[in-house]
Amino acid sequence: MVKTNAGRFFEDYTVGETIHHAVPRTVSGGERALYHALYPARHALYSSDEFARASGLPASPLDDLAAFHVVFGKTVPDVSLNALANLGYAEGHFLKPVYAGDTLRTTSEVIGLKQNSNGKSGVVWVHSKGFNQRDEVVIDYKRWVMVRKRDLDAAAPDTVLPELSSVIDAADLTIPEGLDFSGYDYALAGEPHRAADYEVGEKINHVDGVTIEEAEHMIATRLWQNTAKVHFDTSARPDGTRLIYGGHVISMARALSFNGLANAQMIAGINAGAHANPCLSGDTIRAWSEVLDIAETSANGVSAVRLRLVATKGDSAEMTLRGEDGKYRPDVLLDLDYWALMPS
Amino acid sequence: MVKTNAGRFFEDYTVGETIHHAVPRTVSGGERALYHALYPARHALYSSDEFARASGLPASPLDDLAAFHVVFGKTVPDVSLNALANLGYAEGHFLKPVYAGDTLRTTSEVIGLKQNSNGKSGVVWVHSKGFNQRDEVVIDYKRWVMVRKRDLDAAAPDTVLPELSSVIDAADLTIPEGLDFSGYDYALAGEPHRAADYEVGEKINHVDGVTIEEAEHMIATRLWQNTAKVHFDTSARPDGTRLIYGGHVISMARALSFNGLANAQMIAGINAGAHANPCLSGDTIRAWSEVLDIAETSANGVSAVRLRLVATKGDSAEMTLRGEDGKYRPDVLLDLDYWALMPS
Amino acid sequence: MVKTNAGRFFEDYTVGETIHHAVPRTVSGGERALYHALYPARHALYSSDEFARASGLPASPLDDLAAFHVVFGKTVPDVSLNALANLGYAEGHFLKPVYAGDTLRTTSEVIGLKQNSNGKSGVVWVHSKGFNQRDEVVIDYKRWVMVRKRDLDAAAPDTVLPELSSVIDAADLTIPEGLDFSGYDYALAGEPHRAADYEVGEKINHVDGVTIEEAEHMIATRLWQNTAKVHFDTSARPDGTRLIYGGHVISMARALSFNGLANAQMIAGINAGAHANPCLSGDTIRAWSEVLDIAETSANGVSAVRLRLVATKGDSAEMTLRGEDGKYRPDVLLDLDYWALMPS
Repeated sequence: MVKTNAGRFFEDYTVGETIHHAVPRTVSGGERALYHALYPARHALYSSDEFARASGLPASPLDDLAAFHVVFGKTVPDVSLNALANLGYAEGHFLKPVYAGDTLRTTSEVIGLKQNSNGKSGVVWVHSKGFNQRDEVVIDYKRWVMVRKRDLDAAAPDTVLPELSSVIDAADLTIPEGLDFSGYDYALAGEPHRAADYEVGEKINHVDGVTIEEAEHMIATRLWQNTAKVHFDTSARPDGTRLIYGGHVISMARALSFNGLANAQMIAGINAGAHANPCLSGDTIRAWSEVLDIAETSANGVSAVRLRLVATKGDSAEMTLRGEDGKYRPDVLLDLDYWALMPS
Repeated sequence: MVKTNAGRFFEDYTVGETIHHAVPRTVSGGERALYHALYPARHALYSSDEFARASGLPASPLDDLAAFHVVFGKTVPDVSLNALANLGYAEGHFLKPVYAGDTLRTTSEVIGLKQNSNGKSGVVWVHSKGFNQRDEVVIDYKRWVMVRKRDLDAAAPDTVLPELSSVIDAADLTIPEGLDFSGYDYALAGEPHRAADYEVGEKINHVDGVTIEEAEHMIATRLWQNTAKVHFDTSARPDGTRLIYGGHVISMARALSFNGLANAQMIAGINAGAHANPCLSGDTIRAWSEVLDIAETSANGVSAVRLRLVATKGDSAEMTLRGEDGKYRPDVLLDLDYWALMPS
Repeated sequence: MVKTNAGRFFEDYTVGETIHHAVPRTVSGGERALYHALYPARHALYSSDEFARASGLPASPLDDLAAFHVVFGKTVPDVSLNALANLGYAEGHFLKPVYAGDTLRTTSEVIGLKQNSNGKSGVVWVHSKGFNQRDEVVIDYKRWVMVRKRDLDAAAPDTVLPELSSVIDAADLTIPEGLDFSGYDYALAGEPHRAADYEVGEKINHVDGVTIEEAEHMIATRLWQNTAKVHFDTSARPDGTRLIYGGHVISMARALSFNGLANAQMIAGINAGAHANPCLSGDTIRAWSEVLDIAETSANGVSAVRLRLVATKGDSAEMTLRGEDGKYRPDVLLDLDYWALMPS
């Protein structure tokens, strides 16, 4: 009997089934320190216990994206080991902050299936939930991937297309219990700009760039126990390059966005995300943002700001997403649409 | 008076003496997180406090190999700074798990000496013990190394050859207090295979590969305070390469073996080990295992499985250890014979 | 309104103003583990809680240089983002050890200004203080940098030159409360040499070398939230190299100095420091030290030893700082004059 896990193929998924992903993970100050070592992360709420307490939280949580990577990493052996492409994200809710000592695990329900017309692969939609040790959902999101068929003769399943919102309504965002920005210290946070200082349509060039090294993206991707071969093994792709985990680009861009969005402290939701082009070692990542919406929340002094975060591997100064053909420009790596919480 | 430590030479060892190695080390969640960042480690018992508690332990321990590297690293300045080769390991017992907050130190008793016939070097056998802050032995092992003579005219010592077992009897393994796999959660652990599902002689190709970078092996080796020059200094070897610490290969291969041996949770003993060929940056490490023995233990639901773990720098699919000449194949990096604890 | 921070230029500083630097940082066991992973750090007091307790401290503190890097890193966005050169340090006092759980922040008072004769830049002197969460000053130092003018027509400020001591008097050093080396364990510390064994004028070649990788210095520099572009972005300098943060060289040299100065446990003061030549990836860092002074302190069994620590990128055996022209030799990277605490 073969003991190794070859991963699931398209015909192995059934709409309605729930996959219980393996290898729960306890996080500590070690993961926090590594996150700061791997990304130029400076949002004060994730850097200082004192700042977090002054904002109504019990301590500084693990960066929302670090928590997301842990939750996401668990799904890889069951969802994306044989994936041809990670197609998109939607309806991502950050429901509870994750603290040192918490243990995370993930489940995914299959919510959609559609075989491709070529008969060789299909699209799988999953609804993934990350739980802490109290069985509270901390992160909840939908994701769809293109997965190869093992047996090209396997019958196509009935097509089921989930209904997904293109954007989360601000009123549906969950604000962490106790969060209060009424006594916010802008000097300690690093910038004076509150939500009221931003305008819908405003674009911000985050200026700084980081040139990526193989060792760094592998250390980061392993930290989240993401096992996809293409990130680690030079023999996995024909040209011998190691494809960089898309989440590494998300975290790098989000950290770079501090410069101009230092007060966009917490991520409350992910509306949509696309990895527009592959990122490789040697690329210099830059980022720009566009303000898409600004909304009130029920929490004291807390606004929700909807942002488009774009990572590029060229100059970020032009701040253009698409070429004349309507397609992503070749230097665009990431187009992420998310909600952040900011002092009003 | 020269203040720097030039290390010991062959004539500096006396059978029966005990060396108290320097620089005790307290470990924390930081070492745990770094172990997960440096190796694709996914054994659930070392990843999740909750999984460890469900297995009868107070919390998730530091990976056994991380504890081994700390204990081993302490011996380097006194035992292997002038070593020509690390020849072997035997009778390695893992006696107590190491937890965040524990402080480790190491002693080594010289148990054997044999000058080589060329008169330029000799073999030193040591019996090393790692202690925690309660002076409990956590790891106990024998190791032998070939060490240069400082003074070629120094008299050869009487030859003393220690008697070493080639394999630890399963009955002599120490099972961590409280360990109980009777309520083991195979879904959370990642694979359904219990000890009873394996057969002696069975070979498992672990499939996945990791291409090694200089920064990663240096970060790992420093983390264990291993100071051997050849790992860090491009001028230490004639060809300018940095030799990768053998323990880095052990940890990488063991982590890769999750795929097929996810339930081989804890290491209880090391029977033998050989670093068959040097590993260098750019090599892609793969691994395969062979089941050598399966035994009961006194603990509830816990079996001991004796495994040969082989790391290669080529394809791991052929699973052949030696060439027609009886020697290790040139792509074999490691041949490790160990006992793991697995649900029955 | 532009939201990104372009940094301050020479004309933006006023003598007497105090800058409250952003992004406080809580440190944990994660930062400690990373420090040991990035540098070959082996001083026992920073490695072992037990050794620290036997020396009268409550636990093993964060390495003094790690604490310095955190405090220093906070100043970069306000002081050195547009710096042309980091010119020097003086009067650096290490006043309180930093422990896991502490939160650090930094302020800088502008204490001197002098426009350069070319009218394009000027020198800014700042007096920086790192505070913990109890508002206790943990590190206090002066630093001066050459900063560009934004507007070349801006009027030159009145020249104010601070009076700085070239060396801290041993009597003015602060010894951590409770520090007591009367029961010092030299075997555990790694070397037998006490302060009385060193002579003023004695030079020590620390022998070992480490070849630097891009990934390592970037991970280290980010860990301290130091954002200077030249360390991360290959497009920031005309030749495409990434300049290595001077503090990385300081920590590497200090860690290498263990071999010969294992008992120079804690740093009590920095008298002066110069980054003599730039350090780049691929350089092999070595170090040598010179004993400049030895003094008593008020603490039990504790002496202060004044040391010159020199990092080189060539051979460290010659131990010569300057060429015949009186200038630093081209292979000298660092010339640091500091006070360390050592058993008497």
